[in-house]
Amino acid sequence: MNTSHSERLIVQEVAPRDGLQIEPTWVATTDKIALVDGLSQAGFTRIEAGSFVSPKAIPALRDGEEVFRGIARRAGVTYVALVPNLKGAQRAIAAGADEINLVMSASQTHNRANMRMSCEASLAGFGEIVAFAARHPVSLNATVATTFGCPFEGRIDEDRVLEIVAHYLALGIPNVTLADTTGMANPVQVRRIVTRALALLPASALTLHFHNTRGLGLVNVLAAYEAGARRFDAALGGLGGCPFAPGASGNICTEDLVNLCDEVGIDTGIDLPHLIAMSRRLPALLGHEVPGQVAKAGRNCDLHPVPAALQAA
Amino acid sequence: MNTSHSERLIVQEVAPRDGLQIEPTWVATTDKIALVDGLSQAGFTRIEAGSFVSPKAIPALRDGEEVFRGIARRAGVTYVALVPNLKGAQRAIAAGADEINLVMSASQTHNRANMRMSCEASLAGFGEIVAFAARHPVSLNATVATTFGCPFEGRIDEDRVLEIVAHYLALGIPNVTLADTTGMANPVQVRRIVTRALALLPASALTLHFHNTRGLGLVNVLAAYEAGARRFDAALGGLGGCPFAPGASGNICTEDLVNLCDEVGIDTGIDLPHLIAMSRRLPALLGHEVPGQVAKAGRNCDLHPVPAALQAA
Repeated sequence: MNTSHSERLIVQEVAPRDGLQIEPTWVATTDKIALVDGLSQAGFTRIEAGSFVSPKAIPALRDGEEVFRGIARRAGVTYVALVPNLKGAQRAIAAGADEINLVMSASQTHNRANMRMSCEASLAGFGEIVAFAARHPVSLNATVATTFGCPFEGRIDEDRVLEIVAHYLALGIPNVTLADTTGMANPVQVRRIVTRALALLPASALTLHFHNTRGLGLVNVLAAYEAGARRFDAALGGLGGCPFAPGASGNICTEDLVNLCDEVGIDTGIDLPHLIAMSRRLPALLGHEVPGQVAKAGRNCDLHPVPAALQAA
Repeated sequence: MNTSHSERLIVQEVAPRDGLQIEPTWVATTDKIALVDGLSQAGFTRIEAGSFVSPKAIPALRDGEEVFRGIARRAGVTYVALVPNLKGAQRAIAAGADEINLVMSASQTHNRANMRMSCEASLAGFGEIVAFAARHPVSLNATVATTFGCPFEGRIDEDRVLEIVAHYLALGIPNVTLADTTGMANPVQVRRIVTRALALLPASALTLHFHNTRGLGLVNVLAAYEAGARRFDAALGGLGGCPFAPGASGNICTEDLVNLCDEVGIDTGIDLPHLIAMSRRLPALLGHEVPGQVAKAGRNCDLHPVPAALQAA
């Protein structure tokens, strides 16, 4: 594993969006703003700070405008918003998002379940959004959900995934996220797909989004890193989850990922103690434990006192 | 990743010992026997079925004799017992253990805390046990606890770990486990230490024991496998744990490991659906949820029905 600075691993923090969207407890706008600002202070350069979807579809994130307007913008940080359609893109740009993230599933069935439209309709909508966004200072990213498997259809044809990536690029969307929406990826598959994707776009434009649903989130991060990927989504505390796997973990946990990077000498630029302190406040904010491990166990260097009985011996 | 049969990964199931030893709820002897027998039916060839320690030290496992005598021995399965001293070895051999596993920490402080003696005293005791065991049809394994880090001392000198391995071999103990007792290992360190250990003993005699305390258990398994290791401890449901990391995960979870192997084409010989069914019975047996993910999420091939609204469309 190369540890030179050029090998920095970029973590895009998605807890304010992908983490909070399924929380049943309402998180106050001021708490959301404090979360985003705490993350920018911890050293993140990319934060998915909210979404602009129908408040009926995702009531937990209905205050996207107030969050984007309330955060203390930090220089060098890209604040990203997820949007489902042109109206969402218009709202996100008006609220000051630096980047908008579009999403379509490689699986037709999942796209119909998640976005309530066919893949063809999604792509047509993307075209409208690209045309609108071109008149504004905003960058574009599009996600291929269920890249590594679909809970309804199972394995997804890899050629189809790569064709979608090429289609996004041809539409004028330069940045792409490959998402393991329900945690079905394995490291052999990840190496293969990442290698193929990096033939189409540079590492600086490719994000991998893994879930830890079956315990393989960090395994897949390392496999993708070794294949050349350098940008990864992760959520503080491992927030998020999947309605098809009750009790299972959600997004890979940011502090667990940063701890791994610190231990093996991969630079992330993120302040791990700050992150752990933030994660430890999540149970009080959300009313439940969160899946992350390092916030419970501490770092390796957080040593325990030698038992008194041994000191006396 | 080579997927030929010679690359089989051997899982030694340790839930009946390392898993149950810290459980506050008493597990009836008949339930322990059913657990061991269920594991042998699932295809494990190595099961750590109990320990022969002082019932005051570990009351949860005070029925070691009854468990070993009650199990339905399956041909080809090695039933292992952990023992702390000569008396324990005598009890284990009398009860019919096929293999006894000795343990000493690489860290003096941890050995005093865990075994209540110096490393020198541990090694002297191992000599007595080897001499006794030589007169009986039993094989020997010794564990180097805290190989990858100590919660009191921090990093452990790798030369010291390798010297202990060489010392075990010189004592006449042919099989060695390198244990990450409190989940401090990282994959770069694992590759380095496994490579060095495999210069001293064959892969068939080396076991890696990882905990998932900081979320890196399966990452470390793959790193060790890629470095040539082929035998791994794991516990059904991810049972076990560490008194220094309340709330954190314990041993790596067997069904999560077997799922990983199935997905990437590494043969284990273990029946995953059988294992998942066993894991799903653990919460009722123990009175709490367990950390494993795959038992909650199901396998990738356990697809979800397409929502009725979409079928109608």
